[in-house]
Amino acid sequence: MTQPAKQQPADSQLEAFRDIVRSRRSIRRFTDEAIPDAVVEDCLDLAMLAPNSSNLQPWSFYVVKSPELKEPLAHACLGQNAARTAPVLIAIVARTGTWREHSRQVLDNWPEPEVPKIVRSYYSKIAPIHYNQGPLGLYGVAKRAMGMVAGLRRPVPRWPYSPAAMKVWAAKSTALAAENLMLALRAHGYDSCPMEGFDSCRVNKLLNIPKDGEVIMILAAGRRAEKGIYGPQYRLDKSKVVTWR
Amino acid sequence: MTQPAKQQPADSQLEAFRDIVRSRRSIRRFTDEAIPDAVVEDCLDLAMLAPNSSNLQPWSFYVVKSPELKEPLAHACLGQNAARTAPVLIAIVARTGTWREHSRQVLDNWPEPEVPKIVRSYYSKIAPIHYNQGPLGLYGVAKRAMGMVAGLRRPVPRWPYSPAAMKVWAAKSTALAAENLMLALRAHGYDSCPMEGFDSCRVNKLLNIPKDGEVIMILAAGRRAEKGIYGPQYRLDKSKVVTWR
Repeated sequence: MTQPAKQQPADSQLEAFRDIVRSRRSIRRFTDEAIPDAVVEDCLDLAMLAPNSSNLQPWSFYVVKSPELKEPLAHACLGQNAARTAPVLIAIVARTGTWREHSRQVLDNWPEPEVPKIVRSYYSKIAPIHYNQGPLGLYGVAKRAMGMVAGLRRPVPRWPYSPAAMKVWAAKSTALAAENLMLALRAHGYDSCPMEGFDSCRVNKLLNIPKDGEVIMILAAGRRAEKGIYGPQYRLDKSKVVTWR
Repeated sequence: MTQPAKQQPADSQLEAFRDIVRSRRSIRRFTDEAIPDAVVEDCLDLAMLAPNSSNLQPWSFYVVKSPELKEPLAHACLGQNAARTAPVLIAIVARTGTWREHSRQVLDNWPEPEVPKIVRSYYSKIAPIHYNQGPLGLYGVAKRAMGMVAGLRRPVPRWPYSPAAMKVWAAKSTALAAENLMLALRAHGYDSCPMEGFDSCRVNKLLNIPKDGEVIMILAAGRRAEKGIYGPQYRLDKSKVVTWR
């Protein structure tokens, strides 16, 4: 494989990135301008390049722009302005049940002629041991117990060995992609508002979300309107959240 | 407050962003070059600008560069090369217990002379109802039950009403910041490897992680070395994870 050539990006690249991150704000009111589908597709491509756990890509994206579905979906988002005014809503879904199929996909579509032995063994043997929590999560309980014994002598992975931990596992990788998606929209000149305030029962039903899926956020996206930002940006003093050791 | 002026970033900004996202790979081997502290600080500043749930910023970052701590930490990362060779390790921690203190911080440090009434009411009344799950998660159970009744007639929030859901809640916002951090390092010409393969018991003890904290990943960071990328990049066919509605 090739190593990307550029190790030292130009200052202008850093400035561009800073500008994107700093100008991204949660936008609560959009103009009625549509986002071209090609832009949304490009942003999704960039979202999918996020790093993720064992490359199992446990994410799904539901892009909603048809008024028949967008309207009830905005209603399920408690009618908030961001949802009501956005030309596109994207439900971002973390999946705990796709790792097996995605393991197969990685092996079946490996980009080089031969799948390295270590990779084949990982996806066909180790991943199933690691991610399968078994009926009622019982394999997970067993794995935790074995970890506690083995862990007395040497470092061992202790996680994600329960159905609840699998939800954190999937949400985490999916959120990495979500951040790429929001920044990509900004880089394209559009904006977004990540919403957690929604009725998940109604949303799951409207979008027919699979049983193993959790909508971790619904992204309202579009062109920033006047007064689209509701308040000043505030961040905690860094000393509260950063520790140097 | 001011609205950022730039609505339509230049094409060069988009290209810069694309380049950063595309050149970011999980790097498993770093040179022994240090990252200047100022660069790490800048990357953390950009990480902290990630959107997050109710602006409660439930994240912490432990930046480890002292050899006395970095070595046992790399050992707790199962000795993987990324951890062993990185000049800096950053433990990224999701906190389920800081929302109350951070609510206070938002109100105490509001960037404008007056805290709007709706903001004061949100952080002093609504957030405590929403995020406090009570002893043994019993408030959460009650909130879920009330939601089921009220939800028969109108959309209601149903989440995060359990201690387990709070873990997903915190991990999600923290992962958004983690992605900013990785991209920021890339924008600065450095690289990273987000690691989930570590012994959380040993890591928690080494870093003295608070009880409400979960290390959602440990980021190895540094200058990309030759053969730092282990395999070709593979992403699922988009049709498997994107649905247009």
